[in-house]
Amino acid sequence: MHISELDTPALVIDLDVMERNLERVSNYARDHKLRLRPHTKTHKIPALGRRQIELGAAGLTVAKVGEAEVMLAADPPDLLVAYPVLGGQKLARLMKIAKRTRVSVALDSLTAARQLSEAAAASGVEIGVLAEMDVGLGRVGVDPGPQLVDLSKAIEKLPNLRLAGIAFYPGHIKQMDDAGIAALEKLSRVIEETLEQLSAAGINVDIVSGGSTPALWHSHCVRGLTEIRPGTYIFNDRNTVASGACRPEDCAASIITTVVSNARPGLMMVDGGSKTFSSDRLGPTGEATFGYVLEAPGATYVRQNEEHGYIDLRHSERSFEVGERVRIIPNHICVAMNLHETVFGVRGEEVKEMWRVEGRGKLQ
Amino acid sequence: MHISELDTPALVIDLDVMERNLERVSNYARDHKLRLRPHTKTHKIPALGRRQIELGAAGLTVAKVGEAEVMLAADPPDLLVAYPVLGGQKLARLMKIAKRTRVSVALDSLTAARQLSEAAAASGVEIGVLAEMDVGLGRVGVDPGPQLVDLSKAIEKLPNLRLAGIAFYPGHIKQMDDAGIAALEKLSRVIEETLEQLSAAGINVDIVSGGSTPALWHSHCVRGLTEIRPGTYIFNDRNTVASGACRPEDCAASIITTVVSNARPGLMMVDGGSKTFSSDRLGPTGEATFGYVLEAPGATYVRQNEEHGYIDLRHSERSFEVGERVRIIPNHICVAMNLHETVFGVRGEEVKEMWRVEGRGKLQ
Repeated sequence: MHISELDTPALVIDLDVMERNLERVSNYARDHKLRLRPHTKTHKIPALGRRQIELGAAGLTVAKVGEAEVMLAADPPDLLVAYPVLGGQKLARLMKIAKRTRVSVALDSLTAARQLSEAAAASGVEIGVLAEMDVGLGRVGVDPGPQLVDLSKAIEKLPNLRLAGIAFYPGHIKQMDDAGIAALEKLSRVIEETLEQLSAAGINVDIVSGGSTPALWHSHCVRGLTEIRPGTYIFNDRNTVASGACRPEDCAASIITTVVSNARPGLMMVDGGSKTFSSDRLGPTGEATFGYVLEAPGATYVRQNEEHGYIDLRHSERSFEVGERVRIIPNHICVAMNLHETVFGVRGEEVKEMWRVEGRGKLQ
Repeated sequence: MHISELDTPALVIDLDVMERNLERVSNYARDHKLRLRPHTKTHKIPALGRRQIELGAAGLTVAKVGEAEVMLAADPPDLLVAYPVLGGQKLARLMKIAKRTRVSVALDSLTAARQLSEAAAASGVEIGVLAEMDVGLGRVGVDPGPQLVDLSKAIEKLPNLRLAGIAFYPGHIKQMDDAGIAALEKLSRVIEETLEQLSAAGINVDIVSGGSTPALWHSHCVRGLTEIRPGTYIFNDRNTVASGACRPEDCAASIITTVVSNARPGLMMVDGGSKTFSSDRLGPTGEATFGYVLEAPGATYVRQNEEHGYIDLRHSERSFEVGERVRIIPNHICVAMNLHETVFGVRGEEVKEMWRVEGRGKLQ
């Protein structure tokens, strides 16, 4: 099928670019002896999780039990739920998953650890646990130091849990400028001190799991780090470009839209708004623009309603007629994927793949 | 089922509040002899569309052909697609719908009108058209005056189209303060002049369709207006409260979340972020807060990631343990509904209804 036969809005993935992205990170991890456990929340498609494993990923990461259930179809040797699993219903589902593959959970509270231990004991399975520490984002994770040592000790003592390592997410590092490099150096020292403190307490961990997209290519500079869990790298997006972690031509995913109105001077409306792109602003700056128009980089996607994308044409290279199509790179591809039931893999102008976004909307 | 048995995050609808909201607007429209054609993009559930018709709605409004297909299950006497329908695939689907119920489309371009006419002629159906004018939002719609008269004349001449009226969306009126009242008076004059100009051109239209949520209860003050298309009123949300169009106790929809971490001082994380609430900011002000915590109004939902809601507890009435639940009213219920596969109707603590959000993610 030719790409022009797709009705709009349609999320398309340039397969050549995607494969180059996958291979580049796979090679990077192998070259630097970093374990790669990609976060599949970006694509939410088992076929792509499978591809990541074929390219050397040691396992897959998910955010929710529902995503873990979906990713079983990728036949992963290992699944990390990088989110505390709380409550009987989710834990029962997690135990079923743990009977099919090795499961780990990242958590930061005794409550979460105890609930997990009880469920695992009742089901006769062992669950790996990564003790989560905060390294500056201020989201989840106990303090490095005594808090982390105490949490780790408690996990070690709980039945049917195996302390597999420590985890963190340096989401506070937005760009690899001088401040970013300094933040990574600080992170290295925190990890070294933490490992020493754990060791002094008689705890030796195999996995030190962290990393974020902006700092992806500097992961080998983080001393003590053994595992990375990048997600966005498979497609990249406007945020990744803005963070400096990829070039514009490394963005594999874009959304084809149709111009539905140009009645207002200097503006056009396309049939993709917040229900198609999400209302996530441009990450590093918070700028209220919502995509990059490939056909006219001078045009600016300045505003959204659910079904309307407002494209400011005052600095556009060209004008557009009602019915024409434009392809737009979203700010944040993970949330955009979550809004699409089906996405399309293309090579040049040919549609080669049609994937259901199986992990879409798995809130629980 | 008791509400505590729902796994989180779960979007719940207080049925008593919803029914009160539905009846209030139904009564208002009847009392003021305004035709009510509710926008179903808010709920996306045929059973609720059916309820709106039972309460006197003359028809239903949708934004997309896919939503129209879903809403056929509500057996509406009339469906308005308040969005230009462009391209062969969507038009073919629309013609199938037009064989099952009366269909109208709002549009603002000759291109859209011609495509619609050709499709209707080929299928032997008649489609109603509302000529769309811009009254200040600057989104879609031609200028009132000669542009609107020309568009209306052109629609009248095209085969298989019936010029049913004019449409507009005064989305620029955010609050009914003095400026809002003045804007409504200006709108009345624009409508009066437009109807005179159309009449002078020999065109008399039955439907003058407009209105927005902030101005809902002032619709009867807009001279010439014959039809309103409110959507949000069925549930209301934080935006509606902020606009002054409802009280906090009129919000029927909230999202139950679980506290998954309180490791960071003064903060807690709940298991609903942008994938559960959407990243829409508070509408009228653009304030970057994402919901109202019912259990602790002094707590502030200050930040989001896809699966993390950051609740600032520094001014909270109380603290929360990991595993506790909190119920949060979202900023914008339409986009939140679109993120949930299933939602639950409750009376008090009892779950009485489980609805699939059938119109969810209908991008095309």
